[in-house]
Amino acid sequence: MKTGTNLLKTDERLDDLQRNNLKIIQSPGRFCFGMDAVLLSGFVHTKKGDELLDMGTGTGILPILLSAKTECKTLTGLEIQEESADMAMRSVEYNGLGDRVKIVRGDIKESCEIFGKSSFDVITCNPPYMIGKHGISNEEEPKAIARHEIKCTFEDVAAAASGLLKPGGHFFLVHRPFRLCEIMNTLTSYKLEPKRMRLVYPFVDREPNMVLLEAVKGANSRMTVERPLIIYKEKDIYSDEIREDYGF
Amino acid sequence: MKTGTNLLKTDERLDDLQRNNLKIIQSPGRFCFGMDAVLLSGFVHTKKGDELLDMGTGTGILPILLSAKTECKTLTGLEIQEESADMAMRSVEYNGLGDRVKIVRGDIKESCEIFGKSSFDVITCNPPYMIGKHGISNEEEPKAIARHEIKCTFEDVAAAASGLLKPGGHFFLVHRPFRLCEIMNTLTSYKLEPKRMRLVYPFVDREPNMVLLEAVKGANSRMTVERPLIIYKEKDIYSDEIREDYGF
Repeated sequence: MKTGTNLLKTDERLDDLQRNNLKIIQSPGRFCFGMDAVLLSGFVHTKKGDELLDMGTGTGILPILLSAKTECKTLTGLEIQEESADMAMRSVEYNGLGDRVKIVRGDIKESCEIFGKSSFDVITCNPPYMIGKHGISNEEEPKAIARHEIKCTFEDVAAAASGLLKPGGHFFLVHRPFRLCEIMNTLTSYKLEPKRMRLVYPFVDREPNMVLLEAVKGANSRMTVERPLIIYKEKDIYSDEIREDYGF
Repeated sequence: MKTGTNLLKTDERLDDLQRNNLKIIQSPGRFCFGMDAVLLSGFVHTKKGDELLDMGTGTGILPILLSAKTECKTLTGLEIQEESADMAMRSVEYNGLGDRVKIVRGDIKESCEIFGKSSFDVITCNPPYMIGKHGISNEEEPKAIARHEIKCTFEDVAAAASGLLKPGGHFFLVHRPFRLCEIMNTLTSYKLEPKRMRLVYPFVDREPNMVLLEAVKGANSRMTVERPLIIYKEKDIYSDEIREDYGF
């Protein structure tokens, strides 16, 4: 575990992940991981020895969390933004995870060239949710890149996942329900068959604001929709599942 | 309202729909409507003067219920099975609904020839849920035809709805969640864009067993997933919504 004065750059902080003493370097002005990444980490299942890729890993929250939750042989995070990838690399080093977790700077659209086709058992992705660039003042702003489809579209993500997964490999993602039909159509067109879905409802009587999906490359068409994941049982009080399973 | 000794045939009974004093003729040995039809009737919305078609209407539960719940100008039920269509016609007559509700015996696959293209504002359908004929002893058995895709597939249903709807017309259906992805893909391929979805969960901590969908002909891709519809708040006790909005 690395300590010392050069760990954090200006405007960065070290946050405790409340699991296995793991920490993550974040910069609130750039982007901080949200509940969606944590919920995705709980939705993922892997087998011992799997090779996992997280596409658009940001500061590496998913590979770092999943290094503790899974028995994957390797967990690779791919990130296009230099500063985010650099924070992720320093977090991996700080946590002493360098033998299993690797951060690669690169573009999802070039990922088949970077890693080679059919090279992963599991792919995870918490992609930008918003279509287009409406309301963005600066396309180079890190939060804009993380939230809007500036550097890649969902179709780019699906195409890359399809190319990178082995036959029967699993693709886990979190997205917004308003794009559900488009997402399912796009996944299917890339031979990524949705097999499992869970909707995340902030309250039991409210519309869902996230959808968790698992697709399997080359599978047949039949899916399971799981029980609702409800975040709050009342205002400011997390549901039992969120407290017990996710540690909030 | 017709009364008299010839209303019911052997093995038929007259059931009270608990709304506007409406009754329906059913034959328990053939098929009785279920909660799915009632939930679909609550999910549908129409405008005054709309012309509505219910495809595969069975004993006419949807047009009869919707005659009370909507201001549709006409409500037509299409049914392939002679005995079911006959029961539906007698129910319509018994309820005195003959000026607005019509029952037509015919095949969904020929419905564009029967009614003409672009002739409805709203289409509803509670189609057979099960793929194939596994476990069926007699394909001519009325329950088998209502539950299994013997006389028509979901693609037949989508093709017919797409042909029969006016541009911007609304298609409402209820189905099983395990076919959700296939249903969305099929709808989209027939220019019926899913715009609204609600999952029906028997209990708050259980998998959904029904999905309600609204698609709009020719619409763009963006949908709303609604709050969960939960049937029971505890064993044998309906949720407040089911009691208050659906009269169970």
